[in-house]
Amino acid sequence: MQLTVVKIGGDVIDDKDNLLAFLKDFGMLPGAKILVHGGGKIATRTGSKLGIEPRYVDGRRITDAETLDLVTMVYGGLINKKMVAELQATGCNAIGLTGADANILPAKIRPVSAIDYGFVGDIVNEDINTEALRVLLEGGLVPVFAPLTHNGSGSMLNTNADTIAQAIAQACAGSMSVKLIYCMEKRGVLSDPGDDDSVISEITVEGFRSLKEQGVISGGMIPKLDNAFTAINSGVKRVIIGSAADLYQLYSGVAGTTIL
Amino acid sequence: MQLTVVKIGGDVIDDKDNLLAFLKDFGMLPGAKILVHGGGKIATRTGSKLGIEPRYVDGRRITDAETLDLVTMVYGGLINKKMVAELQATGCNAIGLTGADANILPAKIRPVSAIDYGFVGDIVNEDINTEALRVLLEGGLVPVFAPLTHNGSGSMLNTNADTIAQAIAQACAGSMSVKLIYCMEKRGVLSDPGDDDSVISEITVEGFRSLKEQGVISGGMIPKLDNAFTAINSGVKRVIIGSAADLYQLYSGVAGTTIL
Repeated sequence: MQLTVVKIGGDVIDDKDNLLAFLKDFGMLPGAKILVHGGGKIATRTGSKLGIEPRYVDGRRITDAETLDLVTMVYGGLINKKMVAELQATGCNAIGLTGADANILPAKIRPVSAIDYGFVGDIVNEDINTEALRVLLEGGLVPVFAPLTHNGSGSMLNTNADTIAQAIAQACAGSMSVKLIYCMEKRGVLSDPGDDDSVISEITVEGFRSLKEQGVISGGMIPKLDNAFTAINSGVKRVIIGSAADLYQLYSGVAGTTIL
Repeated sequence: MQLTVVKIGGDVIDDKDNLLAFLKDFGMLPGAKILVHGGGKIATRTGSKLGIEPRYVDGRRITDAETLDLVTMVYGGLINKKMVAELQATGCNAIGLTGADANILPAKIRPVSAIDYGFVGDIVNEDINTEALRVLLEGGLVPVFAPLTHNGSGSMLNTNADTIAQAIAQACAGSMSVKLIYCMEKRGVLSDPGDDDSVISEITVEGFRSLKEQGVISGGMIPKLDNAFTAINSGVKRVIIGSAADLYQLYSGVAGTTIL
């Protein structure tokens, strides 16, 4: 089975027109596919109305009990189900899930070390329930994942969407030919952060290391590329990073940055 | 295939201990099963914090656009996913869904007549996607439905949970042997509303009519029984109404009120 795993982030989700255009393109991708979405400003906005202010320790957001309820509502309910309804309208038979559903993504709460992240889940790769995923995919369904997992003892957990996409792609790579596409605002990894046209078409782990040292790649792009290299080194056939607006070109390998 | 469809309401959902006990019992019911849940006070509480006050016309709640977002979040996200995580903890392989997921429950927005109910969906029985339900059930999964449907054109819709349970039971009755259990606070239909022990063990449509005329059956029990008679008249094998605390006894036919 050929499988495409696509991840989109909050920037696309926050822009209604871009989101609809993206979902239409996603719905038309050939073959089995899975969408993983991130959060978006709506969680922060809803939280602030509910009196839940984001808490950070050393620049890392902490998921306390009320934040967990907030993201379960907003990611697992509002954002996920609106996307599913829109995908259904384009004829794509989407099914909205969290990692608790069908026990697809069991996780362990992140151990407290210097920082207590709260209800944050680290996926246990060998526990991913690819059998349930296969039931859905072979049934012609298109799973759409909110960035949530569960601990197997009754609690939901907050988990990074990039990591979920990588973990699912990796788990399925054992029995399927998997393509993983990370969508973001930029058109790919840039050799000149100030020039949107300076997309690096292919990047190796050595190239990544050197661009990191030069400070060309920085910030949120580093964990994204770490996830991408983890995926490619664990059997995922192709990993591409690029703009949500270019989904079909990324799928066809004629845009974005390909991870080697 | 034998299938049990169970509906629980907001009263059970609002009481954490009762809910956990119920979910444990539900998880242990033998054979294929589906859970349909209602809302709960948490939607009203969350709405009021968000500045969304319930609007009523002639005693009927209106689902405007912001209320639709609220119930999509709270029913489809918070309540549904917490239940799924708890069911998973008991070893029940639950998968939380709305009617938009896998296009299982397409609906039409209720036509505006004397009252404009807003984003309320009436299920089109012959459009129910039993094929997708069968894929999930045969895959060993236990669907858990929030009281939401969709219009097929990109919008979620608010739909009564009793009606969803009846519609699913009815649609599956064509190809499966279906038992439908409505759980509520009372132990069944009472012949004396003041005496909780006066459970009527069996009720016919004539008995229902006469008890309605006498005023013994009134309020929310009337649409619930209407749904129950619709189900039994359309091929559902057994319909039972009783207390969530007696789930196993209702399943075994030794408690509650059986619809004849």
